Amino acid sequence: MDSSKKIAVIGGGSWATAIVKMLCENLDEVGWYMRSVYAKEHLLKENHNPNYLSSVEFRTEQLKLSNDLNEIADYADYLIFVVPSAFLNKELEKLKVSIKDKVIFSAIKGIVPETGLIVGEHFHKVYDIPYENIGVITGPCHAEEVALERLSYITVASADEDKAKFMAEQLSSNYIKTKISDDIIGTEYAAMLKNIYAIAAGIAHGLGYGDNFQSVLMSNSIREMRRFIKKIHKMKRNINNSAYLGDLLVTGYSVFSRNRMFGNMIGKGYTVKSAMMEMNMVAEGYYAAKSAHLITEKLKSKAKTPIIDAVYQVLYEGKDPKKVFGKLTDKLD
Amino acid sequence: MDSSKKIAVIGGGSWATAIVKMLCENLDEVGWYMRSVYAKEHLLKENHNPNYLSSVEFRTEQLKLSNDLNEIADYADYLIFVVPSAFLNKELEKLKVSIKDKVIFSAIKGIVPETGLIVGEHFHKVYDIPYENIGVITGPCHAEEVALERLSYITVASADEDKAKFMAEQLSSNYIKTKISDDIIGTEYAAMLKNIYAIAAGIAHGLGYGDNFQSVLMSNSIREMRRFIKKIHKMKRNINNSAYLGDLLVTGYSVFSRNRMFGNMIGKGYTVKSAMMEMNMVAEGYYAAKSAHLITEKLKSKAKTPIIDAVYQVLYEGKDPKKVFGKLTDKLD
Repeated sequence: MDSSKKIAVIGGGSWATAIVKMLCENLDEVGWYMRSVYAKEHLLKENHNPNYLSSVEFRTEQLKLSNDLNEIADYADYLIFVVPSAFLNKELEKLKVSIKDKVIFSAIKGIVPETGLIVGEHFHKVYDIPYENIGVITGPCHAEEVALERLSYITVASADEDKAKFMAEQLSSNYIKTKISDDIIGTEYAAMLKNIYAIAAGIAHGLGYGDNFQSVLMSNSIREMRRFIKKIHKMKRNINNSAYLGDLLVTGYSVFSRNRMFGNMIGKGYTVKSAMMEMNMVAEGYYAAKSAHLITEKLKSKAKTPIIDAVYQVLYEGKDPKKVFGKLTDKLD
Repeated sequence: MDSSKKIAVIGGGSWATAIVKMLCENLDEVGWYMRSVYAKEHLLKENHNPNYLSSVEFRTEQLKLSNDLNEIADYADYLIFVVPSAFLNKELEKLKVSIKDKVIFSAIKGIVPETGLIVGEHFHKVYDIPYENIGVITGPCHAEEVALERLSYITVASADEDKAKFMAEQLSSNYIKTKISDDIIGTEYAAMLKNIYAIAAGIAHGLGYGDNFQSVLMSNSIREMRRFIKKIHKMKRNINNSAYLGDLLVTGYSVFSRNRMFGNMIGKGYTVKSAMMEMNMVAEGYYAAKSAHLITEKLKSKAKTPIIDAVYQVLYEGKDPKKVFGKLTDKLD
């Protein structure tokens, strides 16, 4: 693989900032698109992202920063998309440069609402990117711990092993260990589904369920995730690998997870709308619950997904979380 | 199954107290042996165990309390052993009554140090109890949450399905859900092994590893547990069921777990001896690490167990936790 290939990150949030930091450990130059003109100017002057992971100092001469998506798309051979899935389509609409020959990596944990597809599928179907040019970068990884250079493990998946290896090398450092995988569909679904389970964990916590129940919920979640993904894309995968189980746990047990926090507020009695307003943002799992529900509805033979169903009923059917979770407890074991 | 069968709990600790509480929801009388004369007298006078779960009120007319193990062994048809594995043999030496025709349930999470056997095997080999009269009661379940009547799930395993069902019924209530299993060997090994992984989680935390690493450690732990148990007793089991994965998580993520606390002190620089003295007790996982090590040594074809190996090296070979865990991180993925 030609190591002169240029890599750019699309997004200005905390996970995007963490990935730029990882790449800066290895590359002379990293492309970085962010929407905010203010953030870019601040970065150039003060050497850190003002909004996210502001403790991370960058050497700005290493960054090719731009507020122009087309400039960055033109610059790079590898594009790593790290914008919230709900805003991806809006960003992509700005594209005038063709990305057909680019290698596209997704570090987005969610579904594109407009198409109901995970990001890899979206690029494949809407932008004609062949699957061998598509990849996924997934955790378990809180961006905040990358900022602190705490040892973290990342999985890089691609249908093309060489591309997975290349990207894994660019992300590896003394605090990042990488593993490659060929399961681009499963890893991305896992990253999306875990946010629904984190909402479930939050709701349960808000309702007063304790640690014993949380462990049963996580044990049931990973079994449900396995069934769900198997229906979508059957292949040999060990669901207990870090990209699936690890990613579920790091989110489901995190008190800082936005999804868990969102669920927690609902469990404590906030309406869905007021929880959203209070958080001043939308948790990814909110969209994921709808998408997962629609996907299972379309499947000829459905997977048993009582936890996703319960979260969906609470978020979209206005059902009482206490009643819904009371019924859910009978379906878990 | 004859519901007039008498059940007794052997042990005075928090898990024993929690199991007595569960049984009291269903039975007119529950036998309860505890060593401490003071605790028994206090219980009869004040209606609670002075030492453990003291918030739990008992109706003493429901309890057949005794400090005499033989009296209780004589009384009951089902004996549930809930003493620390390190003290089991010492208690059993008091027995003059034959227990050959009793049904023996183990709620002990550990190995009998004198024989290196899990409790079920110990009763089978040393006391000639046939496997169909042996059972296991396992979590994921913190006793403290049972005291609070927070919803918890318990797995009851026995080679004899009727006995598992009978015991499960006696433990079930509006806050306890039960599941039966025929994997008496695997569930008991899981309950023992998880304490080693909790020590590993504690050591890692003490050394400064973060949540990202913890999730990778747990993901590797469950895969290692699966390999280990498969070598001991191969059968069809879903390692992600609550009795295995759930039990690992409830302990590995608990800041109250004695095993995790013990590991944490060692990670922070305490010697093994000083950590034990500071805690004023021995964590079950300390013995489990030695037993698991001896078991793998004896196996013709060893399972890959880098986490158990690392904990063993720190606890028994005086190796530097920082170096040992540094090497371990290269073996995880």
